[in-house]
Amino acid sequence: MSKKDSTISLCALQAGIQPPSCGSEPQVPTGLIMSGSPTLEPPLDTQGDTSLSSRDEDVAGETQHSQRMLSFSDGLLSIIATVMILPVTHTEISPEQEFDKGVQKLLATRIAVYLMTFLIVTVAWAAHARLFQIVGKIDDTLALLNLACMMTITFLPFTFSLMVTFPEAPLGIFLFCMCVVAIGGVQMLIVLYAFHCPHLLSPYVQTSARRGLYRRHILGLVLRGPALCLLAAGFSLFFYPVSYLLMATVIFLPYVSKATHWCWGRLTGRRQPPAPHVDSSLDLSEALSKERVEAFSDGVYAIVATLLILDICEDNVPDPRQVQERFGGSLLAALGAAGPRFLAYFGSFATVGLLWFTHHSLFLHVRRATPAMGLLNALSLAFVGGLPLAYQQTSAFARRPRDELGRVRVSCAITFLAGLFQFSVWTAALLRPGETLRPAARVGGPEHAFMFAKLALYPCASLLAFSATLVLSRFSATIFHLMQLAVPAAFLLLRLLVRLSLAAVRALHRTPGSPRDLLLPPE
Amino acid sequence: MSKKDSTISLCALQAGIQPPSCGSEPQVPTGLIMSGSPTLEPPLDTQGDTSLSSRDEDVAGETQHSQRMLSFSDGLLSIIATVMILPVTHTEISPEQEFDKGVQKLLATRIAVYLMTFLIVTVAWAAHARLFQIVGKIDDTLALLNLACMMTITFLPFTFSLMVTFPEAPLGIFLFCMCVVAIGGVQMLIVLYAFHCPHLLSPYVQTSARRGLYRRHILGLVLRGPALCLLAAGFSLFFYPVSYLLMATVIFLPYVSKATHWCWGRLTGRRQPPAPHVDSSLDLSEALSKERVEAFSDGVYAIVATLLILDICEDNVPDPRQVQERFGGSLLAALGAAGPRFLAYFGSFATVGLLWFTHHSLFLHVRRATPAMGLLNALSLAFVGGLPLAYQQTSAFARRPRDELGRVRVSCAITFLAGLFQFSVWTAALLRPGETLRPAARVGGPEHAFMFAKLALYPCASLLAFSATLVLSRFSATIFHLMQLAVPAAFLLLRLLVRLSLAAVRALHRTPGSPRDLLLPPE
Repeated sequence: MSKKDSTISLCALQAGIQPPSCGSEPQVPTGLIMSGSPTLEPPLDTQGDTSLSSRDEDVAGETQHSQRMLSFSDGLLSIIATVMILPVTHTEISPEQEFDKGVQKLLATRIAVYLMTFLIVTVAWAAHARLFQIVGKIDDTLALLNLACMMTITFLPFTFSLMVTFPEAPLGIFLFCMCVVAIGGVQMLIVLYAFHCPHLLSPYVQTSARRGLYRRHILGLVLRGPALCLLAAGFSLFFYPVSYLLMATVIFLPYVSKATHWCWGRLTGRRQPPAPHVDSSLDLSEALSKERVEAFSDGVYAIVATLLILDICEDNVPDPRQVQERFGGSLLAALGAAGPRFLAYFGSFATVGLLWFTHHSLFLHVRRATPAMGLLNALSLAFVGGLPLAYQQTSAFARRPRDELGRVRVSCAITFLAGLFQFSVWTAALLRPGETLRPAARVGGPEHAFMFAKLALYPCASLLAFSATLVLSRFSATIFHLMQLAVPAAFLLLRLLVRLSLAAVRALHRTPGSPRDLLLPPE
Repeated sequence: MSKKDSTISLCALQAGIQPPSCGSEPQVPTGLIMSGSPTLEPPLDTQGDTSLSSRDEDVAGETQHSQRMLSFSDGLLSIIATVMILPVTHTEISPEQEFDKGVQKLLATRIAVYLMTFLIVTVAWAAHARLFQIVGKIDDTLALLNLACMMTITFLPFTFSLMVTFPEAPLGIFLFCMCVVAIGGVQMLIVLYAFHCPHLLSPYVQTSARRGLYRRHILGLVLRGPALCLLAAGFSLFFYPVSYLLMATVIFLPYVSKATHWCWGRLTGRRQPPAPHVDSSLDLSEALSKERVEAFSDGVYAIVATLLILDICEDNVPDPRQVQERFGGSLLAALGAAGPRFLAYFGSFATVGLLWFTHHSLFLHVRRATPAMGLLNALSLAFVGGLPLAYQQTSAFARRPRDELGRVRVSCAITFLAGLFQFSVWTAALLRPGETLRPAARVGGPEHAFMFAKLALYPCASLLAFSATLVLSRFSATIFHLMQLAVPAAFLLLRLLVRLSLAAVRALHRTPGSPRDLLLPPE
C-alpha cells in the first residue's frame, strides 16, 4: 500500500505547477492531436533556433516525448537479440580436431539457441512496442521503469541458454520463467502508472471514452505470457515437461495464431475483423509502428556490421614480441598472416551494409508494417545476425581446402536466406498494397521495378554463387570473392541496368494495348 | 574521366521521370522549406494511415530523407568509438601475477589508446555531422557512398592501435594516415556528388546565392585533415617524428583552437564573429545538430550498457561436464561461483542506464549544442565507456582484499568523472542560456533546481563513496554496493526530495523581496 501511496504522491508532485488533471478527465494538450501523421522530415536544428514552435516549449513540464527513449530501448533490445551469435562465432575448432559429431552437436545447439533467443527477444520487443503505442509520453518515473524493464530483458538470453544447456535441471527453467515474470511485472507497473496519470497516455487513448477497455486489453496482453510462465516455474519444480509445453505456448502461440488467421483470411478472402472491444483505428492486434521496426532493424544491422571489428580490434593487433620472434620483426608479414580475417571483415561489412541499404530502400516505400511483415523482417534479421559467423568461418577454414567448399556454401546459404526473407517482406506488402505501400512502389508505380531488382539482387547473386560452386567446386573461394566484388558494383549501376533492361523489354513488346505496359514506368 | 561520366549519367538517370533540375538552377521542392523546425513529436503511425500528408508521398522520387541513414551512421560510429575499451577490459591478470610495472604499462597504454581512439572517432563523427548538415537529402548513390565512408572509419581504431603498438614502424603510421586519407576521399566524393545534384543539398544551401562558397568551405573542412595525413604518410617512410607532429595537428588543432577561441571570447567578453564568407545562419564552425549528438550518445550508452552482457552470455553459461566435476552437479553452486560478475553487470547497467537518464533529461532542455558542449559531452561519454572496465575489475579482484580497495576507488573515480563532465555540459550551457537552453531550465525556471539535483547526484554520490572508503577502508565493498542501491532510489524520489528541500529553504528565507525567490519555482 505504501508503494501505491508513494506513486500517487509522486504523480501529484510531478503534476507540479500546472496540474495536468491527474486522475480526472483527460485533457488533450493543444497541438498534439495532429501528431499522428508520420513525419519523415529530418529535424535540422541548424536554422530553427529563432523560430521556436510552440511544440518546442512543450517539454517545459515534466512530461516528455518518448521518441528518444524508444530509440534507446530499440538499440538495447537489438543488441540483446544478437548477443547469442557470439558463442557460435567463437566456437573454436582447432585444425587438428575432426569436425565430428560432438562439435557438430555443439554448433547446432548454439545456433538453435541463437535463433530461439532472437525470436524470444523479438516477442519481448513487440510487446514493448505495443505498450508504448498506448503510452504516448513519459515522465521521469516511466523512464526509470523502462530502464528496469530493459535490464530484466537483458537476462533473457542468458537464462534461456542456461535452460538449453541444462534441459533437465529445474533451476534453468525456473530462472528463465522468473525472468519472463519479472518483465511482465515491470510492464504491468508501467501500464498502471500510465493509466493512473492519464496525461501520459497517447492522445488517442486519452480522449477515448473507453479508456478502461484499453487498460484491460493491454494488461491482458502484457500479463498473458508471464502468467503462463509463473505456472511453468511452479511445474518445473516437480514435473518439468509441462513447463516446456507452457513456455512453447507463450513463445509460439502468438505467431502461430497470427499465421493461421492470416492464411485463413487469404484463403477465404475475408479479412479478420479487429478485436471487437477495441476501436479499429488503434487496433492493437494489427499495428506495428514503422519507426520502431526501422529502429530495431537498424540496431541489429549496426551491431552485426561491427561484430567482426570488435574481434579484430581486440585480437589482431600483433604482439611486438611475437612479431620479433615469428616474423623476424616484419610487421607486414604479421599482418599478412591475419589477412583472411580482414577480408572476412570487408565481406561481412559490405554484405550487412548493402542488406541494410535494401532494407532502408524498402521501408522508404512502406507505410505501415503488418504482423506478417514484422515476422518476416525478424526472420531476415536473424539470418543477418548469422552473417559474421559465416564470413569468419570462411576465412578461418581457408587453410583446409576440404572444408572451404562447405563454408562458402554455408555463407551463400545464409546470405540467400537473409535476402530472401527481406524479399518476402516486400511480397507480403504487395499482397495488401493499399494499406502497406506508397503508390510509387505498387505494381505499376515508377519505383516498382527498381525495388524488385534491388531486393532480388542478393538472393540471385548468392544463389548463382552457390550453383557455381556445385559445378566449379575447386574455385569456390574465387567465386565467393567475385560475388563480394560484383554485388556492390551492381548496386551502384542498378538504376542504369534496370532502365536499360526495361527499355529493351519495352522495345520488344511495343504492341498497342499490351497489358505488360502496366508493369513498366512511363517514359 | 569515365568515373565522372558515369556519375553524370547516373545522376541524370536518377532524375528520372520528373527531372529535378540536375546541374541547373536550384529548385526548391514545395513543402520542404519549413522542414527546418525541430520536430520532437514522436511519429505515431497508428492512426495516420488514411490522412497521408503531402510530405508522405514525397519520397516517391529517388531522393530520400536522410534521417534514418544518419541514425544508422551514428549507431555504427558510436560502436566503433567504444570498441577499444574491449582490449582494456579483457586484460587478463592471473591471481598469481604481480600487479607489476609491466602490467601497469600495458594497461596504461591500452587506456591511452582507448581515450585517443574515442577522441579521433568523435572528430570523424563531427566531420560527418557537419557534412550532412550541408547535404540535406540522399539518393541511392549517396547512401552507398556513406556506407563506404563508414567502412573506412571502422578501420581507424585498428590502425591507430597498430600505430601505438609499433610506434617506430613506418607501416603502422602509414596505414593510419592512409585510413584518414581514404575517409577524406570518400567524403570528398560525397560533397562533389551532392553539389553536382543540387536537389540533394539542404534547402538552405540550395536557395543560397553563394552555393559555390559553401562548397569550397565544406571541401576545405573535409580535406584539411587528410591532406596533412598524406604528408605525414610520406614522411613516415624516412623520418617518422614529423609524421607524429602532423597527425597531432590534425587531431588536436580543431579542439585546441576552439577552446582558445572560446576562452578568449569569455575573457574579452566578445563573441567570435562567424567565418566571414559563410552566412551566419548556417555557421559551420558553430552548429552541432542536437539530434545527432543525442543519437551518437545513445549509441555509446547502449553498447556500453550491454558490453558486460556480451561477455556474460558468451562465457558464463557453465559447461555441463564442469558442473558435474567441480560442483557435484549443482547448477546453483556453479552459478554462485560466477556471482560477482552478475553483481558487476547489475551495477554497470544501472549506472550506465541512470547516466543515460540524466543525459536524456538534460538534452530535453537543450535547444542546441555549442562545440564546447560537444567536447564536454564526448569526454563524459569516454568515461562512460570506461565504466564496464571499472565494474568488471571490481568483481574480478574481489578475491584479493588488498586490491579491492583500489578497484572500488577507481570505479568511484570513473563514475565521478563521467558525471562531472555531464554536469559541466550543463554548466557550459548555462553560460549562454539564451541560445542553448529552453526557458524552463534557465536560472529561475521551474526545472532549474531539478536539473541541478539530477546532474549533481552521481558526482556527489561517487565522491561520498570515495571519501567513505578513505575513512572506512575495510568496508569499501559494502559502501560501494550501498551506493549502487541508494542512487536509483534517490532518482525515484528526487522530485519529492527537491520539493521538500526547496520548501524548507523557502520557509527559512521567507522575507519579502528576497532575491533567492528568483531561484525557486513558484508554488
